[in-house]
Amino acid sequence: MTQTTTLSIAALHERVEAIFLKAGLNGVQAGALARVIVAGERDACKSHGIYRIEGALRTVKAGKVKADAVPELDSNEGSAIVKVNAKGGFANPAFELGVPVLAERARKLGIAALVINDCTHFSALWPEVEAVTNEGLAGLVMCPSYATVAPTGGNKPLLGTNPFAFGWPRPNGSPYVFDFATSVAARGEIELHRRAGKQLPEGWAIDAEGNPTTDPEAALAGAMLPFGGHKGSAIGTMIELLAGIMIGDLTSPEVLDYLGTTTLAPFHGELIIAMSPEAFAKGRPGDPFARAETLFEAIVGQGARLPSQRRFVARKTSETAGVTLTAAEMEQLDRLLDKGLDAVS
Amino acid sequence: MTQTTTLSIAALHERVEAIFLKAGLNGVQAGALARVIVAGERDACKSHGIYRIEGALRTVKAGKVKADAVPELDSNEGSAIVKVNAKGGFANPAFELGVPVLAERARKLGIAALVINDCTHFSALWPEVEAVTNEGLAGLVMCPSYATVAPTGGNKPLLGTNPFAFGWPRPNGSPYVFDFATSVAARGEIELHRRAGKQLPEGWAIDAEGNPTTDPEAALAGAMLPFGGHKGSAIGTMIELLAGIMIGDLTSPEVLDYLGTTTLAPFHGELIIAMSPEAFAKGRPGDPFARAETLFEAIVGQGARLPSQRRFVARKTSETAGVTLTAAEMEQLDRLLDKGLDAVS
Repeated sequence: MTQTTTLSIAALHERVEAIFLKAGLNGVQAGALARVIVAGERDACKSHGIYRIEGALRTVKAGKVKADAVPELDSNEGSAIVKVNAKGGFANPAFELGVPVLAERARKLGIAALVINDCTHFSALWPEVEAVTNEGLAGLVMCPSYATVAPTGGNKPLLGTNPFAFGWPRPNGSPYVFDFATSVAARGEIELHRRAGKQLPEGWAIDAEGNPTTDPEAALAGAMLPFGGHKGSAIGTMIELLAGIMIGDLTSPEVLDYLGTTTLAPFHGELIIAMSPEAFAKGRPGDPFARAETLFEAIVGQGARLPSQRRFVARKTSETAGVTLTAAEMEQLDRLLDKGLDAVS
Repeated sequence: MTQTTTLSIAALHERVEAIFLKAGLNGVQAGALARVIVAGERDACKSHGIYRIEGALRTVKAGKVKADAVPELDSNEGSAIVKVNAKGGFANPAFELGVPVLAERARKLGIAALVINDCTHFSALWPEVEAVTNEGLAGLVMCPSYATVAPTGGNKPLLGTNPFAFGWPRPNGSPYVFDFATSVAARGEIELHRRAGKQLPEGWAIDAEGNPTTDPEAALAGAMLPFGGHKGSAIGTMIELLAGIMIGDLTSPEVLDYLGTTTLAPFHGELIIAMSPEAFAKGRPGDPFARAETLFEAIVGQGARLPSQRRFVARKTSETAGVTLTAAEMEQLDRLLDKGLDAVS
């Protein structure tokens, strides 16, 4: 039997935060990063859990993110756009600074947007969507990535995996949340196939010559494909336009030019749109939250699933039983805490 | 050689408007409907051209849309939500009434929403997206439909084909516009396969028992499937939430309950979100419109296509050479003008 260690969520948070502080991050950066990484572990979403610490530290070490950045809020009174400049730090503390102002603005005006500029982004979008739904608001979140996806009909990486996420608040339970890449698969999944020596399913990728491939090496040298053909390609393009160009931040090809690699966390911006169901539904028949439950019941009632349910089940377990890590994971955390930036190349 | 007739856009508009006036529609309804239907013919988008007149008239005759409705604007000063109640008429005149106010609000606040309530909707969303981009704004448009699509993992119609449309203004040319159903195919395409006695491609539909089918009859009795698997299903659900429930209007299953058929135009609401690239990009480096052109050039430069290009090419031809209709189409227009509502069952 493999040795494992179970930590409470608070204890894991303390440990992850200590790693970031040791590596030279300031308090706002370290705290916000620890929250989002621990949320990943808590929800059994390992691809966004402690596995991400190293990448964040590598990006610090490469000088591509400012460890001591203090985000600046431009509350932009009189506008429906709230802006936070991450000042070259991670997106997460910038988001935390902006979200209460976004929520207040969306409640007042019905719809409002939070723009984060000049940030490094490596986390899933669902923690941010859930921060919006926690305010009783519906939220749409999107950002570019690096150029790794060819537009449909094209043959070269141009779009990012550009995640698109949405949430709807459910007063008596976990929110309705989806968060997905606009590519068929995440880049990490192709990497996992490569390590396992397995062929990719058809339709995931093209090789460097633009021909369909199921070979993960050829796919990594070529380009991934958008989900849902030309429709997903159009949504990925929309994300470049809205969450890159419109907000005055980098597009996925510009991110790749800037970093020169996909092994560091990308530097770009992020767009969050929040809407108040109460403001929109005002004066109309029916309670929007109750009506949404009827829709969810109809979905579940015919055997379909609501997105994110696996995460919410894992969360419930973690909240009472803690998070269990393998001996290798614990050693890795110890090593990162001990060596700081020297632990990463 | 088949006899054809070529009409100028203005002449076709006059003819279509006259049909609606003869059928008892008031001026605002007839004018707005004629504009959107002629736009379909002009762009060689036959599925939303004069073919749609009959369905609109059938819906009038069935008493499911008010021919003499006058939409009412609630400009909702101090809010980012502009509302238009279509008063049981068609969505199009309500949209025309709301869009200048939406544009002014979006320019002032950066982002704003137009809600249309209590409308009958049969047109494509691209004319509305283009009305937003004509104001120099980026636009997102969505609405429910009838319950004809099963959520991924389910086995019964629940979601609509819920169109999702987006536009980005291009100062020196036609805008970037996409407008697509969130089902794999439009319901009309399944109907066309049925009439042609052709099997459907795999993955389009399930039969009444929830099993995959390529038989169009079985598909029409069963359910269509969302595009892009669970991702498209999630987007379709988001549209029910935002453009049905949040705006206090009917969801796709409620529309079907209300109409009892999919042969009439659906009664529901619509959500339009407009964003000002100038307001969002303010204070940031680079001109968003010039940067967008760089992105479009990169897409086209690798052999991929921008959406809607076929429409724009057809539009250019129609604007100089007019619109050519078959003898059968001309007879149909004459018959509709002559008989009014008596021409439809």
